[in-house]
Amino acid sequence: MVDILHRVGIKSSVDDVYKALSTRDGVAGWWTADTRGESKVGENLKLRFTTGGVDIGGFDIKVLELDPAKRVVWQVADGPEDWVGSRISFDLKQEGEHAIVLFKHQGWKEPSESMHHCSTKWGTFMMSLKSLVETGKGTPSPDDIKIDNWN
Amino acid sequence: MVDILHRVGIKSSVDDVYKALSTRDGVAGWWTADTRGESKVGENLKLRFTTGGVDIGGFDIKVLELDPAKRVVWQVADGPEDWVGSRISFDLKQEGEHAIVLFKHQGWKEPSESMHHCSTKWGTFMMSLKSLVETGKGTPSPDDIKIDNWN
Repeated sequence: MVDILHRVGIKSSVDDVYKALSTRDGVAGWWTADTRGESKVGENLKLRFTTGGVDIGGFDIKVLELDPAKRVVWQVADGPEDWVGSRISFDLKQEGEHAIVLFKHQGWKEPSESMHHCSTKWGTFMMSLKSLVETGKGTPSPDDIKIDNWN
Repeated sequence: MVDILHRVGIKSSVDDVYKALSTRDGVAGWWTADTRGESKVGENLKLRFTTGGVDIGGFDIKVLELDPAKRVVWQVADGPEDWVGSRISFDLKQEGEHAIVLFKHQGWKEPSESMHHCSTKWGTFMMSLKSLVETGKGTPSPDDIKIDNWN
């Protein structure tokens, strides 16, 4: 079992970071502009992605935990086969002027090339989250940072 | 055992990416400007980092493999305890106009908070490598992208 792990520090309160992780409009501001559904425990967020105007699919994400200013946990309900059933979590804590986000995407069956790609891509999305909270503007899809020939 | 994995695609030939990974001047262009030593199998590269003008340490990296246009492997000879003995590898292949880099940092004893940090940081350094090869300018330390309260 291999995991994708990241750590970013955001000059803000954990409350503001929690808001960006726990609301549909927040997620739309750093991951993908086309975020639909409900960010409520037991409900699904529906993330859709395009590149160059072409639909490249997306994920349905079930919200498992919403613990204000502390923790958000999702489970992938639908999407690419290697994503389905995997868990994505964000743990928050305040360290001085920084809200620290410990990110985990767990449940990958193997360290595939796709997983290498997603690890780098998650890093850029965590930097997008940081930018959104610090400046009011992230780089969600379709304006996300392109890292390779897959996106 | 947990690994840090990344994938970037660079609009260039694998030869140009190999050069940026296998020479001292190349590494100084994307990882840290203060790169000393020799990039020869069995020799050590000495990477040193500063932030805000303050020395924050670094790594001595033994070069284990240099396989032109295909693979570079390093082992950490000296540095922070959780880095010593770990292995860093870069596998290269051409896919159309992109040189693909599959990055692995293996041998972490536990998924510590430091490892989360290094995972995100490696992602930004792989994007620095991409920028160096595509545009001639990377973002090596001390001009590296700051991701959290540790750097």
